[in-house]
This record gives sequence, structure tokens and C-alpha cells, in this order.
Amino acid sequence: MPELLEVLNGHRSVRAYQERPVPDEVLDAIIHAAWRAPSSFNAQEISLVVVRDAARRRRIADIAGGQPWIAQAPVFITVVIDAHKTGLGVKRAGREPHLHRSLEGLVMAAVDAGIVLEALMVAAHAEGLAIVPIGGIRRDPQAMIDLLALPELTFPVAGLCLGYAAKEPEQKPRMDIAAFRHEERYDGSALPSIIAAYDTAIVEHWRRVGRANGLPWSEAMATYFGAPDRRPLAEVLRRQGFDLTAGE
Amino acid sequence: MPELLEVLNGHRSVRAYQERPVPDEVLDAIIHAAWRAPSSFNAQEISLVVVRDAARRRRIADIAGGQPWIAQAPVFITVVIDAHKTGLGVKRAGREPHLHRSLEGLVMAAVDAGIVLEALMVAAHAEGLAIVPIGGIRRDPQAMIDLLALPELTFPVAGLCLGYAAKEPEQKPRMDIAAFRHEERYDGSALPSIIAAYDTAIVEHWRRVGRANGLPWSEAMATYFGAPDRRPLAEVLRRQGFDLTAGE
Repeated sequence: MPELLEVLNGHRSVRAYQERPVPDEVLDAIIHAAWRAPSSFNAQEISLVVVRDAARRRRIADIAGGQPWIAQAPVFITVVIDAHKTGLGVKRAGREPHLHRSLEGLVMAAVDAGIVLEALMVAAHAEGLAIVPIGGIRRDPQAMIDLLALPELTFPVAGLCLGYAAKEPEQKPRMDIAAFRHEERYDGSALPSIIAAYDTAIVEHWRRVGRANGLPWSEAMATYFGAPDRRPLAEVLRRQGFDLTAGE
Repeated sequence: MPELLEVLNGHRSVRAYQERPVPDEVLDAIIHAAWRAPSSFNAQEISLVVVRDAARRRRIADIAGGQPWIAQAPVFITVVIDAHKTGLGVKRAGREPHLHRSLEGLVMAAVDAGIVLEALMVAAHAEGLAIVPIGGIRRDPQAMIDLLALPELTFPVAGLCLGYAAKEPEQKPRMDIAAFRHEERYDGSALPSIIAAYDTAIVEHWRRVGRANGLPWSEAMATYFGAPDRRPLAEVLRRQGFDLTAGE
């Protein structure tokens, strides 16, 4: 099915949306497709909260550090790790939930969240919608928990804007695929030259799309990954019941 | 594009494969599509290791706790969190990588891994292949690290079998979509009755497909989530350089 691969290959994130709303049946179809995505142990430990209310989307735009496209796009979906749901099952069977107190439980749930997020993105593209995934809600997860009334043992891990693109951006180049795909064993020997070439390619891309101050990839990585983390994940996870130190 | 949504809605995991190999150009197309998936901060912090060697696949089948379909399906792809790659960028810009020492860094990377994993699964379905995602490699991540020669600051987070189905299983029912989708705010009031109904539905499904000892969902959850975690994630993550206690 080459059209489907074209959809996947055509991915780009859009940060400018029309006011045009997303019809209910389109949103239903997208969410239905994500509902069918696989999950670890068939636990179905992911839940979604759909926000369409404009004032609430403006609030999320602030929480995410000032991302105006969240207020602009008509639909925002929060992807929630939901050990409240699986915990109800465990308790129904007469046991107490434990796995959520371990790194294994957190990693498993975060991977499942990514699976659902990508299913939503692919389905949205298939329906002609534009999207941009949002990790910025983790700047203040407690504010998201309060806004969405999330219960104990849940955590808002990522979000997604959906709507109709006001402007289709040029697709960003990727690092050479040899930095992504290894055969039989990891071989990082080409990485330094691939990264050097990519630093040049991404700056050319930024120049072409009019972002004269766009950084080389390495400098962008230094900004994001080269400083101690300031997001309050550990604290908010603990408050929600994911006390990872109690897991063993 | 209704066909694409059909592909997403038709997802099932397959645990019986033909010997028929996956043509190189089909595998190339699948991996290319996943390479195009979005990543946090355009970090591209995920890498793949493709294993086709039969002896190595048998080894992975053992590592994953005895999953014969890993030895049977002609291709196994390991999805790797790769802070080695992003770390090279950070160092190239004259800084030291830090984010990988935080829960934020780990959660971000695990979500990105899930995104790539789902892109692989959707692309594989589009190419007429069957798949089953494998979390079981996390039973012994050190053995995967050794087998794949993974460097410091990388972690094998999940895997995927690809091949041609020997037998297409019946699709498993999902919990009512009202347990997955919430509007504006989380509302868990219907969860107890949804879970009770699902326990019945999944047992009927197991009976229909000839698995007389198939558990109700709640009992399966008690088995997986109701016992302390025994997987050595924290220890192996630390050994790989993801020392989460050093992150602040």
C-alpha cells in the first residue's frame, strides 16, 4: 500500500492552523484507530483526554511554555499513562498494584503512550489533518493533572494538536539513515561525520525556510540535553502514586 | 484515506510465521518510513538494530523468556534509546550531556521509541507483513546490550518481529472505548462496569480461539501488574550511564 507509506514519509509538524473545526466523525475515526493500537500485556494502560474548549486550550498553551498553536488548533489530545485503570483490574482480582512503582512499569507505559501517539498522528494524516506532538506539557504536569482532573496513578505524558494546516511547512531533513539503522550489531563509527554533515544540512534548511537564527543540530542538542533537567517529573510522579523508590 | 484507517483498525499481533524472507526493498521501505517519524526536539534519539541471522534470533527468543516466534520470523528489529548519538552532538557543541540522567530524559526517549515502534508496525502492515511487538527483551537488557554491541548511553527498550503470517489470528476485543477516551476532563465513573464487561468478553474470545485457560483481563493484570517488578532495568540503565539519581 504505497499511499500509506507516502503518508508516513510525508510527516511534518505544523504550527499554524485554520479556525476550521475538526468534524466529530473525523475525530472519532482517528481515536478509534488509536484505540486499536497494540499495548503491552494487552493492558490498555493509555487513556486520552480530548480538549476542544478554547479557554482550556489557551491554558494548555501556557502550561506548555507558550505554544500558541495549542490555542489555535481546534483539538488538543492529552495522552495519559493510566495505571488507575489497570489498578482497578488488579484490585478486582484481589491483588494490589505494584508494577507502577518501578522503572520497568514507567518505561513500558511510556512506550505504549508513544505507540498511541503515533497511531493518532498517522490516522490524523490519513484524514487530511495536520498535527504537532507536544512534550511541553511535562513542563508543569501538575497543572495538566488539575486541569484534566486526572486521578491517582495517572500521568499526562504527551499531547497532540490536531487541525487543518494554515501553512504546510517544508519537511525538515533527517540525519543520514545510517545513523538510525544498524545491521546485526550497533556500529557508531560513521556518527561523527554524519553529525557534522547534518549540522550543515539543518542550518541550510533553516536558512531556506527563513529562520536565520536556526541552530546546527549539535548546538540545539547542547541546549536541550546539555543542561540539568528542570522539569518536575520525579516529584509529580511521586505525588500521583508512582513512587519509584518503593518499587522493589 | 479509509484504507489507511482500515490498516490501523485491523491491527493484530501474529505469533506464527512462514519461513519466507522479507525482501530487502520491503524492509528498506518500512525502516525509511519509521526514520521519518517525529522525535522530541528533533533529537532523533532512537536507533534500530536489524537482526536477520537465525542463530542470533534464537538467542533473542531465549532472552525474551522463550518466545519461539522471534526465532521463526525472519526479521527482528530492536528499538534502542540512543543518548550516545545525541551525546555526540552535545559534546561537539562543547557541552556535557545531562538530560539522560533524569526521569524526564528517560520518559521522553521511551515515548519517542514508542512512536518509532508504531511507525514500523503501521508500515509493515501496509507492506502486507505481520508483526508482534516484544517487550520481553527487557527481561535481560544486558544480554541484548552484549549481543548487539550497544555502547554506553544506549538502551534496548523494545523489539519487533516482522514476517509473513502463517496464521492470521482473530482480532482481540478491546475494552469499551469509553475507558480510553475522555472529554475535557477524566471521568472514570464507568470504569468498574466496563472492566467487568471486558473480563467476560475477553474470556469469550479466549474460548472462541481455543485457549480454554485464557484469563479474564483483571486476573491477567493481577499477574503482570500485581507483583513487584523483577526486571533489572534500574541496574542496567545505571550501568549504561543513565544514572537517574545523579540527574539533578
